[in-house]
Amino acid sequence: MDELLRARAGFRLDTIDCSTTPGIAADKKRASQLLAEGAEHLSDLQERLFAASRGGDTRRVLLVLQAMDTAGKGGIVRHVVGAVDPQGVQLAAFKKPTDEELAHHFLWRIEKRLPEVGMIGVFDRSHYEDVLIGRVRSLAPADEIERRYGEIVDFERRLADDGVSIVKVMLHISSDEQKARLQERLERPDKHWKYNPGDVDERMLWDDYQRAYQVAIERTDADHAPWFVVPANHKWYARLAVQSLLITALERIDPQWPVADFDVEVEKGRLAAT
Amino acid sequence: MDELLRARAGFRLDTIDCSTTPGIAADKKRASQLLAEGAEHLSDLQERLFAASRGGDTRRVLLVLQAMDTAGKGGIVRHVVGAVDPQGVQLAAFKKPTDEELAHHFLWRIEKRLPEVGMIGVFDRSHYEDVLIGRVRSLAPADEIERRYGEIVDFERRLADDGVSIVKVMLHISSDEQKARLQERLERPDKHWKYNPGDVDERMLWDDYQRAYQVAIERTDADHAPWFVVPANHKWYARLAVQSLLITALERIDPQWPVADFDVEVEKGRLAAT
Repeated sequence: MDELLRARAGFRLDTIDCSTTPGIAADKKRASQLLAEGAEHLSDLQERLFAASRGGDTRRVLLVLQAMDTAGKGGIVRHVVGAVDPQGVQLAAFKKPTDEELAHHFLWRIEKRLPEVGMIGVFDRSHYEDVLIGRVRSLAPADEIERRYGEIVDFERRLADDGVSIVKVMLHISSDEQKARLQERLERPDKHWKYNPGDVDERMLWDDYQRAYQVAIERTDADHAPWFVVPANHKWYARLAVQSLLITALERIDPQWPVADFDVEVEKGRLAAT
Repeated sequence: MDELLRARAGFRLDTIDCSTTPGIAADKKRASQLLAEGAEHLSDLQERLFAASRGGDTRRVLLVLQAMDTAGKGGIVRHVVGAVDPQGVQLAAFKKPTDEELAHHFLWRIEKRLPEVGMIGVFDRSHYEDVLIGRVRSLAPADEIERRYGEIVDFERRLADDGVSIVKVMLHISSDEQKARLQERLERPDKHWKYNPGDVDERMLWDDYQRAYQVAIERTDADHAPWFVVPANHKWYARLAVQSLLITALERIDPQWPVADFDVEVEKGRLAAT
């Protein structure tokens, strides 16, 4: 799955068909079985990662989720991340920066929400907003936006050196699919709260955003911080694909149960005496 | 369930049989079906609570979990809380206070982790540690410990007035059950990381802890911040009971989908034009 979705050199976002399902032949029903099976595996790996940190292993995972509105970030968090023990997950949703955040370097608020050792961190939006909406809406001078790509590369390099396995995902939907999903939110009163008139304003800049994603991915993909572009018109596919990317990242870490730092037989004796 | 487990005036911890299953006639298998059904209901309510906050509703829930080691707090978080969308949950685990925390009032670190509006907050241990281990181990002067009960009552009164529905749970296991669970952790190498020699030291003070719980519950139970003592020798029971307490708290809030603060027809038109 890794290789199929990886955005390597020469990658072109505009050639990807968002309705495809690379590497997985399934229908919705079969996908739901596969997701449940994968959830158990992911859950076991997460527990090991957490346990290993108690034995001094400092490694951790950071899943970065980026996407156009309605692409399904929330569904990934709920159905993929939500299947593992919440005690092993640190979730950070990055909204429009506050005044305090704007008064700092754009990586300041990111740094504060990095996962601790043994944890799976999940970023719902991230520092990439600063080269996506930041670029499209000219929220900073052009030379500063330009500088940010390099700063992101350096930042992620440092994280990787510090034991963070970074998995960057763009959930990629088509413009038509977004339109249908926004329409559904407007049709259903129980979905109105998820709708924001600003969503249509952003939608009008669709092509600009696609170009900004292309540049961001091109300039920040690296082996230690790879970008994966996940076709997301089929929600079942996107969930399975992201689950698989997470599982692969954890399998590479291959966390081990830590060895007891106490004398097990002595403790058995102490306990028996109570 | 609420009334069966509520620790009202005259409540005596030492009269409770930890192996009973008040209000639920089930076996392990049936319990697992009931838990799955409850999870859907809880999940729906949580989504409404979250949505309502987007419409200006400032209410939220705070589940406080207290227990002797091995009583199953982690299992509650994983199997009860873990069944709802992680985006609607804020989990805080309170360990031994840091030097910085000790330099502040004991409620300082608690205040910082309170749930935001629309969220379900879960405290794995809490400010009650300061009148439990704090009392048993004399970690503060007796008159200060004494004062803390009143400070907790005032604090929780303020939270309730601010829209926080507080549900305080003591998971109550027997001393024999704890011994068996600690033994299992020592038998299984993949559970060693969950064992700490200090657990036996605390176990030796079992009766002191039971008395400290009795006093804490007696002095801080209130209609706006009720204590529930959940017999927890059967894990399936404790999970169903806590799930039920959470569902009841949310049903009392009865959160509603917010009304759109935009003109739905206008937005349909704008979207159609894209």
